[in-house]
Amino acid sequence: MDGSVQDLKADMAAMGRAAREGAKALRLATAEQRSAAILAMAAAIRADSEAILAANARDVAKAKTAGLTPALTDRLALDPERLEAVAQAVADIAAIPDPVGAEMARWTRPNGLDIARVRTPIGVIAMIYESRPNVTADAAALCVRSGNAVILRGGSECLASNLALHAAVVKGLKAAGLPASAVQAVRTADRAAVGEILAGLDGQIDLIIPRGGKSLVARVQAEARAPVLGHLEGLCHVFVHAGADLAKARDIVVNAKMRRVSVCGSAETLLIDRAAAERLLPPIADALIQARCELRGDAAARAIEPSMAKATTADWTTEYLAPILAVAIVDGVEGAAAHIAAYGSGHTDAIVTEDAAAAERFVALVDSAIVLVNASTQFADGGEFGFGAEIGIATDRLHARGPVGAEQLTTFKYVVRGTGQIRA
Amino acid sequence: MDGSVQDLKADMAAMGRAAREGAKALRLATAEQRSAAILAMAAAIRADSEAILAANARDVAKAKTAGLTPALTDRLALDPERLEAVAQAVADIAAIPDPVGAEMARWTRPNGLDIARVRTPIGVIAMIYESRPNVTADAAALCVRSGNAVILRGGSECLASNLALHAAVVKGLKAAGLPASAVQAVRTADRAAVGEILAGLDGQIDLIIPRGGKSLVARVQAEARAPVLGHLEGLCHVFVHAGADLAKARDIVVNAKMRRVSVCGSAETLLIDRAAAERLLPPIADALIQARCELRGDAAARAIEPSMAKATTADWTTEYLAPILAVAIVDGVEGAAAHIAAYGSGHTDAIVTEDAAAAERFVALVDSAIVLVNASTQFADGGEFGFGAEIGIATDRLHARGPVGAEQLTTFKYVVRGTGQIRA
Repeated sequence: MDGSVQDLKADMAAMGRAAREGAKALRLATAEQRSAAILAMAAAIRADSEAILAANARDVAKAKTAGLTPALTDRLALDPERLEAVAQAVADIAAIPDPVGAEMARWTRPNGLDIARVRTPIGVIAMIYESRPNVTADAAALCVRSGNAVILRGGSECLASNLALHAAVVKGLKAAGLPASAVQAVRTADRAAVGEILAGLDGQIDLIIPRGGKSLVARVQAEARAPVLGHLEGLCHVFVHAGADLAKARDIVVNAKMRRVSVCGSAETLLIDRAAAERLLPPIADALIQARCELRGDAAARAIEPSMAKATTADWTTEYLAPILAVAIVDGVEGAAAHIAAYGSGHTDAIVTEDAAAAERFVALVDSAIVLVNASTQFADGGEFGFGAEIGIATDRLHARGPVGAEQLTTFKYVVRGTGQIRA
Repeated sequence: MDGSVQDLKADMAAMGRAAREGAKALRLATAEQRSAAILAMAAAIRADSEAILAANARDVAKAKTAGLTPALTDRLALDPERLEAVAQAVADIAAIPDPVGAEMARWTRPNGLDIARVRTPIGVIAMIYESRPNVTADAAALCVRSGNAVILRGGSECLASNLALHAAVVKGLKAAGLPASAVQAVRTADRAAVGEILAGLDGQIDLIIPRGGKSLVARVQAEARAPVLGHLEGLCHVFVHAGADLAKARDIVVNAKMRRVSVCGSAETLLIDRAAAERLLPPIADALIQARCELRGDAAARAIEPSMAKATTADWTTEYLAPILAVAIVDGVEGAAAHIAAYGSGHTDAIVTEDAAAAERFVALVDSAIVLVNASTQFADGGEFGFGAEIGIATDRLHARGPVGAEQLTTFKYVVRGTGQIRA
C-alpha cells in the first residue's frame, strides 16, 4: 500500500470516527436546535450564492471540456433561480415535524413494567450519489432533521459545487451550536473513497444510501459491508380493469406515463384487461399517441391497435424513462398481478376500476411498496405522501419501503420503566 | 463443478422457487387459516411424538459417539416433557394476533387520496440455526403466523430431529389447506447448502435470520447476499447510580446476572457510580458472592472490595454467559454511558436510581435496543414484552431492534385509494 492510499484510508477512518461524535451531538440536540441549524443552512446557502454559483460554473466548464452530454451537463448546472429553490427546499425541511423521541407505542405489562417504543436516529448515514448538487443540501437537511450524522460523497463531476454547498451547510450547523462533524463531505474525487465507505469505516457507518443510476445502486448493494437502503428502478404498471371508467383510465394512464417520463414513478407498462380490451385500448392508445408516446404492444394488443410496434420480452423489464410505453393484454386481476410479479420491480403499481372487489383483490395480490387504486403512479413521491421531503423511494422490503422521508430515517429503541421488577 | 455440487445447487434453487409460491399462498391465506395451520402443527407434533423422540434419540446417540460435551448433548435432547413444551409453544403462537393486513397508519391528502400503511409479510425467510430442535417448530409457527414462507436449516447434529419435527409441521400445513412449500427444511447435512442460502437462492430469499453462536452469526453477516436480521451478543450492563435504592439495586443486579447466566439478557458488567461506590458496592458484592458469582473489578472497585479478581480490558467486552461479573467504577450517568458506548453491544442496558432526571439522562444517552430503568436486564425477552413468542433479539439498528416476534417479521406497503386523481 503506497502512502497516498494509506493517507486516504486514514482520512476516511477519521471521518467515520468524527461522524460518530457528530451523530451523538445531533441525537442529543433538541428539536428546536435541529430546526435552527436547518434554517441557518438555508440562510447560508443564500448568503453564499455567489461562491456556490462560481464553483458550479467551474464544474459545468469541466463537464463541457470532458464532453458530457448537454442533458447531463444541464443536470448539474445551477443558476440563481435553481439555487434559490435548493435553499427553499432546505428551509422547508425545517418545518417537517421532528421525528426523534416520538413514542411509536407504549403499554404496561401485568408486572407493572411500562414499555415504550421510541423513535431514535439511525446514527451515521453515508450518502453516495451522482450529479444534481441539490442532493447535497437535501440530504444534509433531512439527516439533521432526523438526528443522523451524514457523510456525503457526491459525483466527481460536481465536486466543486458540492463542496461549496457543504461549506454553507457547515456554517448553518455552527450557527446553531452543532459540530461540523454532523455533516461531512468527502473532499477528494478519488474513487477509492467510495470503496472505504462501502467497507464501513471500521463499523462507523450504520446505513448507506445510494442515489443515482442503476449501476451505482447495484454496485453499492453488491459490495457494501453495512446495511443499504436501496432505490432501484421503478418499473411501474397501470392495469386498466374491465370495470374501469374509460375517461378516468385514459387520464390516469396518460398522466402516469407522460407527466414526467424521467421520474421513477412514471409508468412503463400498460396492462389492459382482455375482457374489455376492444372497448378500452383504442381510445387510451389514441390519447397516448396524441401525447407523443410511442407504444409497443404484445400480439393481442397489436391485433386491436395494429399501429403499435412489436414488444419483445425486454420491453416488460425496461425502465424507459422516456415517452415509450409497453402494452400487454392480460386476463383480469390475476393476470395483471402475475405479469407484475414476473416483471415488476416492487415499486409502484396501479389499478383503474370502478369494481371495488377487483380493486381489493389487486391490492391483496400485488406486493409492491405502493399500490394505487384509481390514481396516477406519478403520486409515488414523499412530498405527495405528505412527508415534506424525501431522500428517495426504497425498493428493498425491509425497514423503509416506499418514500424515505425524515421519519423513515429513524429506528427505535425500547425504554422500559420499572419500580424494581426482577424476573422470576 | 462436479455432479453432486450441481445437484445441490439445483435442489436449493428449486427450494427457493417453491418458497416463493409458498409465500404467496401464506400471504393470501386468511388469519383463521394461518391459525388453523399452527394449531394443526401442534397437534401433529403431539401425534407424531413417538417418531420425533426416536429420531432425536438417534441424534443424541450420534452426538455422544462424536464426543459432543454433555452440555451440548443435553441441549439437543428431547424427552416427552420437553416435546410437549415444544408442541404447547407452537399452539400458543396460534393465539398471537395475526399481524398481516393490520393498518399501521392511514391519512387523507388534500387532493382526496386516501393513504394507508398496511402490514404485509416479508416474503421468504431463511433460518440458519444450531442445536435445540425446538427452534424448528418455533420458527415454523412464527413464520406462518406472520405470513412468511420459511426455509429451515438447522444444525447437522440435530438433522434427524429437525426433519421429524418438520414432517409434523407439513402435516399441519396440509390439514389447513396450505402447501408444504410454505415451510421447507434442508434435508442434507452438507454445509454447502448454507453457502447457497447465503448466496440468496437467485434472489428468492428476502431475509436471513441466523440463530446460534457468535461465529455462526458473524459468518452469516459477512457472507450473506440478502438482508440479515442479526442477533449478536448481549453484552448487558447494569449501572447503579448514586441515587439508587440499595435494596432494589441489590435485587436487580443479582437477578440480572444470576437468574439465568446463559441467556443474552444476562448482565455481564456492573457499573457503580463513584459518588456512592463506598456505600453501594460492598452489600451488592456480598449478595453476588453469596449467589456464587465471581467478581472481576477495576482498580477503583478493588480498592473497595479487595477480594475481587483483577479485571482486564477483555473483561469489558466478554459475554461470559457464566456466573462471572465485571465491575467498574464510573463517574455518574455520563461515565456509565461512555463505558456502555465503548464496550457494549447495543442489546440491553439498565440504570437503577430513584433520581428521575438521572434516569431520563441515561435513557437519552444510552443508544441500545432496550434501555431499562429500575428493572432487571433479564426482561429482555419477547414473551416478557408481551409479544407472545420471539425468534431472537435483534442487535442490528434497522427494521427490527430488540425482541423479534410475529409483528417484527412483517414489512408494510402503502395502499393509496383515489377517485381518478392525476398529478399536476
